[in-house]
Amino acid sequence: MEVTRTLARFVVEHDAARIPQNVRHEAARSFLNWLGCAVGACRHETVERALAALAPFSGPAQATVLGRGDRLDAMHAALMNGITSHTFDFDDTHLKTVIHPSGPVASAILALAEREPVSGADFLHAFILGVEIECRIGNAVYPEHYNVGWHITGTAGVFGAAAAAGRLLGLNEQQMVWALGIAATQSSGLREMFGTMCKPFHPGNAARNGLLAALLAQKDFTSSNQGIEAKRGFAHVLSTAFKPDEITRGLGESWEIALNTYKPFACGIVIHPIIDACIQLRNEHGLEAGDIEAIEAKVHPLVLELTGKKTPQVGLEGKFSVYHSAAAAIIYGAAGEAEYGDDVVVDPAVTALRDRVTALEDKSMHEDQTRLTIRLKKGKTLEKFIEHAIGSLDRPMSDAALEDKFRAFAKGILSDAECARLIKLAWDIGGLKDAGEVARASVPGAAGQEK
Amino acid sequence: MEVTRTLARFVVEHDAARIPQNVRHEAARSFLNWLGCAVGACRHETVERALAALAPFSGPAQATVLGRGDRLDAMHAALMNGITSHTFDFDDTHLKTVIHPSGPVASAILALAEREPVSGADFLHAFILGVEIECRIGNAVYPEHYNVGWHITGTAGVFGAAAAAGRLLGLNEQQMVWALGIAATQSSGLREMFGTMCKPFHPGNAARNGLLAALLAQKDFTSSNQGIEAKRGFAHVLSTAFKPDEITRGLGESWEIALNTYKPFACGIVIHPIIDACIQLRNEHGLEAGDIEAIEAKVHPLVLELTGKKTPQVGLEGKFSVYHSAAAAIIYGAAGEAEYGDDVVVDPAVTALRDRVTALEDKSMHEDQTRLTIRLKKGKTLEKFIEHAIGSLDRPMSDAALEDKFRAFAKGILSDAECARLIKLAWDIGGLKDAGEVARASVPGAAGQEK
Repeated sequence: MEVTRTLARFVVEHDAARIPQNVRHEAARSFLNWLGCAVGACRHETVERALAALAPFSGPAQATVLGRGDRLDAMHAALMNGITSHTFDFDDTHLKTVIHPSGPVASAILALAEREPVSGADFLHAFILGVEIECRIGNAVYPEHYNVGWHITGTAGVFGAAAAAGRLLGLNEQQMVWALGIAATQSSGLREMFGTMCKPFHPGNAARNGLLAALLAQKDFTSSNQGIEAKRGFAHVLSTAFKPDEITRGLGESWEIALNTYKPFACGIVIHPIIDACIQLRNEHGLEAGDIEAIEAKVHPLVLELTGKKTPQVGLEGKFSVYHSAAAAIIYGAAGEAEYGDDVVVDPAVTALRDRVTALEDKSMHEDQTRLTIRLKKGKTLEKFIEHAIGSLDRPMSDAALEDKFRAFAKGILSDAECARLIKLAWDIGGLKDAGEVARASVPGAAGQEK
Repeated sequence: MEVTRTLARFVVEHDAARIPQNVRHEAARSFLNWLGCAVGACRHETVERALAALAPFSGPAQATVLGRGDRLDAMHAALMNGITSHTFDFDDTHLKTVIHPSGPVASAILALAEREPVSGADFLHAFILGVEIECRIGNAVYPEHYNVGWHITGTAGVFGAAAAAGRLLGLNEQQMVWALGIAATQSSGLREMFGTMCKPFHPGNAARNGLLAALLAQKDFTSSNQGIEAKRGFAHVLSTAFKPDEITRGLGESWEIALNTYKPFACGIVIHPIIDACIQLRNEHGLEAGDIEAIEAKVHPLVLELTGKKTPQVGLEGKFSVYHSAAAAIIYGAAGEAEYGDDVVVDPAVTALRDRVTALEDKSMHEDQTRLTIRLKKGKTLEKFIEHAIGSLDRPMSDAALEDKFRAFAKGILSDAECARLIKLAWDIGGLKDAGEVARASVPGAAGQEK
């Protein structure tokens, strides 16, 4: 089965009118959430270091680093916005594959849209198609590919970026086949990097390299015609299992972006049920750290595999610690960016409670479930079963909650008026005359400068 | 065992004075051969297409596309020179791993040396160190890694580029650890791409990404401290076997570049014994295609795996056809770039003989061996056993033969005087005041412009 060509033809020929309204709305929600994450992290040290390294090599000022005044060539802007949008690990999650789908795709095409203006309608269409390709390729190799050790947001993301950018560049079918092949041969990103600056680098790199793939293919730079399915192609080399049906079944009928979710907490999604349970018990019983003898959570096996750091030393590591997360949730009633500060993870009040948290693997738990028990010093025991964590598909964040999250990110970077305008532009993305307007409006003081 | 840190410390602390003269000379041979390959292919369609795609995104004119007037930012120049140097598949080969070692390393650091001048001594030292890292990492995962489907020149090359660039940038030990980690998480390149423009893209991409890794690390962009050896690091994720001893044993005592070889023929190294045998029998017996009933070669299993294309349609595919190569060797007495022209592979005289070539797997053959039998129409049978193909470690090309190869590449691009000057600069690389002079001297008319 020629899945690479099937996907290429689909992306090249697809008619935007065939996308249902609910899918468009979910795409706008994804875009809004991605944009907030990118703006929110735009002054983070990770971003400052990457920009200091790369700015001397940038080409013409074609595109905006979101939330900042810097303008870089489109490929560097794609890289930087992919980094910023995943720096807080607070972006969207396609739960079936744990891909963070928007980062690679939106970062690539927003940069491209600033270089050569495209309508919001075309932009949103390309965005939806890119996420579709990326997540279907992910579905075809998950979980085996992830279990091997690949950071699937990077490895699958590069395909999504290539497809979306290729669509905006008007590639023909053969060029799109090549673009997916050039993406395949750049597919990379190791889970070993979790907890370091390389994790957010992965979606940035996927955006940059996917864009590169589309640009090369546009000039007829050739690759294999079976980059995904060949014996030595992506799926067989980077995974121990390949289910090509997941790529082709229902293509154009169901939409993967409709399955996207948004995090209420600034850490890996697998800890969300525990945080949810902690915050609920805390608020229901007015708990304080001093009341608590021990916290015990029964968790899906991935929780310990991904977030088993017992003694995080810096904030970034705290996001990979179920222990810190539970303690912070009890003490602060929240798990936003602030609760993963470098000072918070070493705060004695936090570490004292953290060391009383236990997580036990329980194969009966789904990924968005936990059964949490808190033993109080006075002897009483509290229990909470989370069937679906807040932010999951079954308990999604509301549009209003997504706006609140956006505003929290923009605080200190944009004025209230700028923030309100940017939120409005993001909701309206599908109707804008020029999609690049969103990028320019993300920069503080931009409205004044445009006048 | 912390092999990542061991390698990082070695690269950071190594004293150039400890490199034996024969190793320096082999490095100069490698550099000369690499430079010739790059200059020779500089007007190839592969290069034209890549340059057309990428030039609009290039940053400041920091570095030269070898053999051309174009000047790009250092990362794009590294990418382009990596592509040009492997376009003809005529560059050097580390036979233990089938890595083409110079491409990723030299492309990265020559571009860097043009941006910030470095002495030839430092350049040659960094080059040798980069090749050492790349090949030792290759040794540790070959052949299993290659068997999985990875193009090891790309996957190992990115480490060599990062190490060499990092050395020139003066990284400290921790930064070098990070550079190797950032390289690990970009390691990519699929063997499925052989026979397409993506094959030469791989060393280019390794050069670009290795340079990126070093630049990011220089600004303290963090990665794992065990990018190579961790459970989810490079070796375990991209290979089914890992021999860390191959990385550390004799480090600084033996030198991998001393094991480098250079191709007399413009195709995959595994076909060289067959071409060698064909040319020898042809010349010994004055053979013509019409005399021959059948050609049969007993070959190492990799020959059919890598070069089993029965009916190549374009010249590039001919390089992956043992059948075409044998036929061309008989008819033309050579297997240079010309014998892999698009017109040659479909020439009826060539295809008629090609279809009479058989290759049989014989596990008793080493990679540089073949037993070739030619059955003549008149009934006689000729036989030739090649114990070591020309160009192998046991029958290396001479310095003079390397110069001849260089001159054949430069023909039509440089004048005889320019070519002679460039050859001299390449031999003298370790003594130049400014290594970047080589890059500038590769451009036709450069001498006049510099006056």
